[in-house]
Amino acid sequence: MLNLDFHPSGRHFLQIPGPSPVPDRILRAMSLPTIDHRGPEFGALGLELLGKVKRVFKTENPVIIYPASGTGAWEAALANTLSPGDRVLMFETGHFATLWQKMARRLGLEPEFIGLPGYEGWRHGVQADMIEARLREDRDHGIKAVCVVHNETSTGVTSDIAAVRRAIDAAGHPALLLVDTISGLASADYRHDEWGVDVTISGSQKGLMLPPGISFNAVSDKAIEASRHNAMPKSFWAWDEILEANRNGYWPYTPSTNLLYGLNEALDMLLEEGMEQVFARHQRWAAGVRTAVEAWGLEVQCQDPAVYSPVLTGVVMPEGVDADAIRRIIYERFDLSLGTGLGKAQGKMFRIGHLGDCNDLTLIATLGGCEAGMKLAGVELKGSGVAAALEYFAEHPLKGDA
Amino acid sequence: MLNLDFHPSGRHFLQIPGPSPVPDRILRAMSLPTIDHRGPEFGALGLELLGKVKRVFKTENPVIIYPASGTGAWEAALANTLSPGDRVLMFETGHFATLWQKMARRLGLEPEFIGLPGYEGWRHGVQADMIEARLREDRDHGIKAVCVVHNETSTGVTSDIAAVRRAIDAAGHPALLLVDTISGLASADYRHDEWGVDVTISGSQKGLMLPPGISFNAVSDKAIEASRHNAMPKSFWAWDEILEANRNGYWPYTPSTNLLYGLNEALDMLLEEGMEQVFARHQRWAAGVRTAVEAWGLEVQCQDPAVYSPVLTGVVMPEGVDADAIRRIIYERFDLSLGTGLGKAQGKMFRIGHLGDCNDLTLIATLGGCEAGMKLAGVELKGSGVAAALEYFAEHPLKGDA
Amino acid sequence: MLNLDFHPSGRHFLQIPGPSPVPDRILRAMSLPTIDHRGPEFGALGLELLGKVKRVFKTENPVIIYPASGTGAWEAALANTLSPGDRVLMFETGHFATLWQKMARRLGLEPEFIGLPGYEGWRHGVQADMIEARLREDRDHGIKAVCVVHNETSTGVTSDIAAVRRAIDAAGHPALLLVDTISGLASADYRHDEWGVDVTISGSQKGLMLPPGISFNAVSDKAIEASRHNAMPKSFWAWDEILEANRNGYWPYTPSTNLLYGLNEALDMLLEEGMEQVFARHQRWAAGVRTAVEAWGLEVQCQDPAVYSPVLTGVVMPEGVDADAIRRIIYERFDLSLGTGLGKAQGKMFRIGHLGDCNDLTLIATLGGCEAGMKLAGVELKGSGVAAALEYFAEHPLKGDA
Amino acid sequence: MLNLDFHPSGRHFLQIPGPSPVPDRILRAMSLPTIDHRGPEFGALGLELLGKVKRVFKTENPVIIYPASGTGAWEAALANTLSPGDRVLMFETGHFATLWQKMARRLGLEPEFIGLPGYEGWRHGVQADMIEARLREDRDHGIKAVCVVHNETSTGVTSDIAAVRRAIDAAGHPALLLVDTISGLASADYRHDEWGVDVTISGSQKGLMLPPGISFNAVSDKAIEASRHNAMPKSFWAWDEILEANRNGYWPYTPSTNLLYGLNEALDMLLEEGMEQVFARHQRWAAGVRTAVEAWGLEVQCQDPAVYSPVLTGVVMPEGVDADAIRRIIYERFDLSLGTGLGKAQGKMFRIGHLGDCNDLTLIATLGGCEAGMKLAGVELKGSGVAAALEYFAEHPLKGDA
Repeated sequence: MLNLDFHPSGRHFLQIPGPSPVPDRILRAMSLPTIDHRGPEFGALGLELLGKVKRVFKTENPVIIYPASGTGAWEAALANTLSPGDRVLMFETGHFATLWQKMARRLGLEPEFIGLPGYEGWRHGVQADMIEARLREDRDHGIKAVCVVHNETSTGVTSDIAAVRRAIDAAGHPALLLVDTISGLASADYRHDEWGVDVTISGSQKGLMLPPGISFNAVSDKAIEASRHNAMPKSFWAWDEILEANRNGYWPYTPSTNLLYGLNEALDMLLEEGMEQVFARHQRWAAGVRTAVEAWGLEVQCQDPAVYSPVLTGVVMPEGVDADAIRRIIYERFDLSLGTGLGKAQGKMFRIGHLGDCNDLTLIATLGGCEAGMKLAGVELKGSGVAAALEYFAEHPLKGDA
Repeated sequence: MLNLDFHPSGRHFLQIPGPSPVPDRILRAMSLPTIDHRGPEFGALGLELLGKVKRVFKTENPVIIYPASGTGAWEAALANTLSPGDRVLMFETGHFATLWQKMARRLGLEPEFIGLPGYEGWRHGVQADMIEARLREDRDHGIKAVCVVHNETSTGVTSDIAAVRRAIDAAGHPALLLVDTISGLASADYRHDEWGVDVTISGSQKGLMLPPGISFNAVSDKAIEASRHNAMPKSFWAWDEILEANRNGYWPYTPSTNLLYGLNEALDMLLEEGMEQVFARHQRWAAGVRTAVEAWGLEVQCQDPAVYSPVLTGVVMPEGVDADAIRRIIYERFDLSLGTGLGKAQGKMFRIGHLGDCNDLTLIATLGGCEAGMKLAGVELKGSGVAAALEYFAEHPLKGDA
Repeated sequence: MLNLDFHPSGRHFLQIPGPSPVPDRILRAMSLPTIDHRGPEFGALGLELLGKVKRVFKTENPVIIYPASGTGAWEAALANTLSPGDRVLMFETGHFATLWQKMARRLGLEPEFIGLPGYEGWRHGVQADMIEARLREDRDHGIKAVCVVHNETSTGVTSDIAAVRRAIDAAGHPALLLVDTISGLASADYRHDEWGVDVTISGSQKGLMLPPGISFNAVSDKAIEASRHNAMPKSFWAWDEILEANRNGYWPYTPSTNLLYGLNEALDMLLEEGMEQVFARHQRWAAGVRTAVEAWGLEVQCQDPAVYSPVLTGVVMPEGVDADAIRRIIYERFDLSLGTGLGKAQGKMFRIGHLGDCNDLTLIATLGGCEAGMKLAGVELKGSGVAAALEYFAEHPLKGDA
Repeated sequence: MLNLDFHPSGRHFLQIPGPSPVPDRILRAMSLPTIDHRGPEFGALGLELLGKVKRVFKTENPVIIYPASGTGAWEAALANTLSPGDRVLMFETGHFATLWQKMARRLGLEPEFIGLPGYEGWRHGVQADMIEARLREDRDHGIKAVCVVHNETSTGVTSDIAAVRRAIDAAGHPALLLVDTISGLASADYRHDEWGVDVTISGSQKGLMLPPGISFNAVSDKAIEASRHNAMPKSFWAWDEILEANRNGYWPYTPSTNLLYGLNEALDMLLEEGMEQVFARHQRWAAGVRTAVEAWGLEVQCQDPAVYSPVLTGVVMPEGVDADAIRRIIYERFDLSLGTGLGKAQGKMFRIGHLGDCNDLTLIATLGGCEAGMKLAGVELKGSGVAAALEYFAEHPLKGDA
């Protein structure tokens, strides 16, 4: 029998950019007994959840909750609004944008994938002017949707979604705006309504601090209207029956009850703290981590300070150093998991997640593990990143701290 | 803040036919810390799980595990094997067969829905001869798949899948055989390979005793071959990438890690007990419950003793009695949840689940709650069902019992 | 490695008269991380607990909480108020009274143990008139304390403590009144102040629904005064340092932090429900269980209806039947634990606990297990106890029930 | 209602020298349902536990387990072996030795309390030669026991118990040797039999990584013999009835079942790892922490390198700095609890625990919190302790590490 409850001593440091460490408070909520998903208590839970979750997406519109992981919510957004053969404009911010584009193609859409060239192109966010230029060219409005990733988990770059909205409007183009903020929601500032997003896609296992398993589509009226007529075969992902059942707090099929318990707890935690404080907390953590990277004399993956991710930081290794070999040392010696470089970034960098159930000292531990691991691997470091981050955290208390 | 941890006193009796009560042992496993789904420990877990789960489906072929609820696995089975416009022969065993047929239609298939007529038609299982006759007529093999429900959760009728296989073979028809055993798996005898099933669909929240959230497609070589050429747009549900990643114990996208912990524990529990013992245990419970129904002088929903479900029993109310009103009394007075009558059975019957984390005395308690609730509602009962079931359980020890 | 997480299927029915089944809500509270017992949060927890616990003992005086099991609180009561050689008047209500008397002797006290004769004597509660008579004889007040058990766990007899107080007062005797309500507290009506008790002893694992491990001394001013001068060596049990530290919510030595988390949750549950409702709930359960015993044609151990215990019911077996052999059958066939006969009652009876995390249907299950087990053992029963109890519960809703 | 499940974000760092952080694996074990302490499964658990626990004390003799916290086990050791008026020789290693001596006095013993003078005296371990000299003087053997603390939790000094044994033997004195290793057991090397200890006292909430609530007396034949004749009143603590009941795995009164589940798990974890590896792990952590203290230019409380504690390290503040003010800053800004200075050390130092569920990075985080907190408080530090410790851990892998 496999021992899942292994224990070298102490807790594993799970500092990948998601799934993020789950607070015990949420694990406890998830251990509540499963109830009848057609009974009266379930309806009360459903209505409560569906109300609170809107405040996290900053929308007055419905938020669909799927009993499926985040990748499913990508498919749901496409399947509800588009028809086979539709052209969609997608921007290559990194690996996850690339995967989403691949999915669009598999679903029979015609994605046009634009972006800055090469690996270096992945070190910047969405270029709204490129989107605007392309849409202006599209005089017959053949492009049905613009798809962008808000927080690119593979790079640590957070794109400016409001700018994309402005670009679409400036081009006078009717395309829908579909945004993936799977790893941004509840960590990075996000505003579904204010930014005029038509479908916002998110998942449970990042800023919401839940285990993976449920995912979201926040929708606009325009998106709902599109879903009434689009020609993509859809059933599990179809919004109509879910929205209908949600009116009373239920789902048309069996929902992930225990994960919904966890979601309810997560929403309470986030809303008690206040979303602005949540965002400030992650921004401060990110700044501390970047201070460490700078002290080491290394580069942050994201090259545009305006779009540094508050959720994760990519640390670029010096030429010739295999980032994955370093990750392995750190994992084996310090029981610390870091994110691998994906796609074009493979072997070039590792990613530090600063989201989920963590705090200043968790990050100091994490940076300590990185520093020691890089040294053990023979990477030349300019100075102590952990000491620099410690100083940053000490000198920059979070508002509300003593 | 909503109190999910309400406590009138004592545990709620969740005796619906799924989600079933989750053993504490599984809840504990699910509370293990989420790990990196790309790390080495995850791969080991994945391989372990994928191996053990085959023994529950009784197959040597791959079993796909989706991070989505059971309804998703219905869609996956259709989306991987069929093309828009394809005709499929579906048999109306009850409400869930009806929903699956509706899904097929939404996905652009052309379901032909046959069955016995009316509500009474729901009181029998699949009629293999009707399937054989229809397939014989289909000389040009326009029907691409036969879809049947193994254990109809809405009625408590378990169909004879081997007979359906024989019917297809007797007709010399090449249609695929797709079987939903969402509520049958790990409670009722099921044999994917021996019965020649092409796709078996199941979910986590019934005999596997997990919370809802993951689901399954066990596949045949013929089904995999079909998935290579079918024209349905598919990405999230597509078998190819999952099978590829599964070879090393991983998934192409984020799996439901904590539910997989629970699945691993559930598989250990089932395989330690032995599948034949698991089936015998449920058969015995079902017999005890039917003894009670008979003592009450009421009818079991299923009218064919050969296909009584070992998972749940539908109890038909006398003419003029509203079954849902009785369910409400039982819920409010005895903290016991029973399954409602669905579709054509609405208001006519209630369903008692005898699956998941329960035992003889749990069922005695359940029958006690039913008996008292029916009496409070003025239903005339011939005798004491709880006393009859108690006698049945006492006189029929499970093999292996002291 | 021993498998503590065994799982024949379903939950074990723990219906002994304590330790009682612990509600999941309390288990969850106990799993909170242990904190610094000298830190500020601990002080807040301590003050909260020490305030709320008084309401359960119905006292305005301090309640001492020991990080030790209930037997320790017996010793604490004696060690703080008496001196070696002191005479104490103890009443033999049953096995636990006998053990307490034995403890008094081991501690160097001179217990005088009075009571009704033989096993039959154990079927009645404290006889206040015998106490009064004995105290009247004790003209020089050599007797320093009267010790009685409120709810005798070995018999299911709840004595009238107010009557004992009146007896002491009527005799004009200055003896302290020490009362053990280890198994009565938070299930049976109890009033430390109103009944003029000097030391009330209790434990965690009965009506408080916690695991065993902490225990209590509620004290009067007179008891505290006695503790200032008594000559018994005492340190761990000494009230003075605890009372001093408790003023700020702390303890002089390491308290059982996680059990205190559980206690806090238990107190919230009890006080939210209301103590009178808690008492009514147990009285109703006891009445239902006695209805079953009567239907079986058997005798309840307690022969005085005025002092039937609301916490447990002793069921006397017919002459010649070994109660422990029956308990074994019930345990092995129905996964149900019942209390054994202790001391003079050994083999003569078994005890059904109706306390802790249970409800009507839990008790129906329990009575079902008893009924089937007795039949399997060949005990002749007059009728169905489980059917009778079911009818009782149906016809006697708890006030507040729908 | 008090919110015990507060969550500023991330886990609290509990780095006091006990109660230590409890591994989730143990918390999960403790959440198993409470069982009948007189039933067959309990006996099996008891025998398993009582066998395994001996291997941690390194004894072939019985180990008594009390359902009471560690202070109770101090009292138990004295109450079982000594009589009122007996003289005992106790050595002042620090605050806990002082408290034990105070307890001896309260119990009517005549402790003679020797040691090195003043606060500086607390910076060294037991001086075996002083004990030998005193015993040589005691020609009529009026001293009945020598009491020493193995690992002084208030100072971080681990005394040489084998040397004390040799001193007693060299003096040819028959006194019993009573040793408190409450905070040493299962972290620091300890050998009950080999070192000729008569009673070893320990508790659950330190190296055993359990919540507080149970405690231990490991005994020698000579100690058991003494317990047969000593004149101290004793009942709850009396070894005789416990040893008798333990023969079948039971206790004479209700044990702390759920804590025993946790103990069983802890013993499995320790014995799987191997006691020598456990000791090496703690020694290495202690060395890393002392490296940090040295880098800061501060003093370790313990001034004799031969007896540095592997369990905790006292960090002495520069003259004029209030250690408790620093602890408060660290607690408020970094959610890190450190041990306070006790007794003669009050305000002079703080204590870092390196025991329980922790690892290299947990300690890096802890040292980071200390370093930042001291800087914020204006303490002048020579260099970065956290960087120094990081280097130490990197360069000194634990045997068995990759």
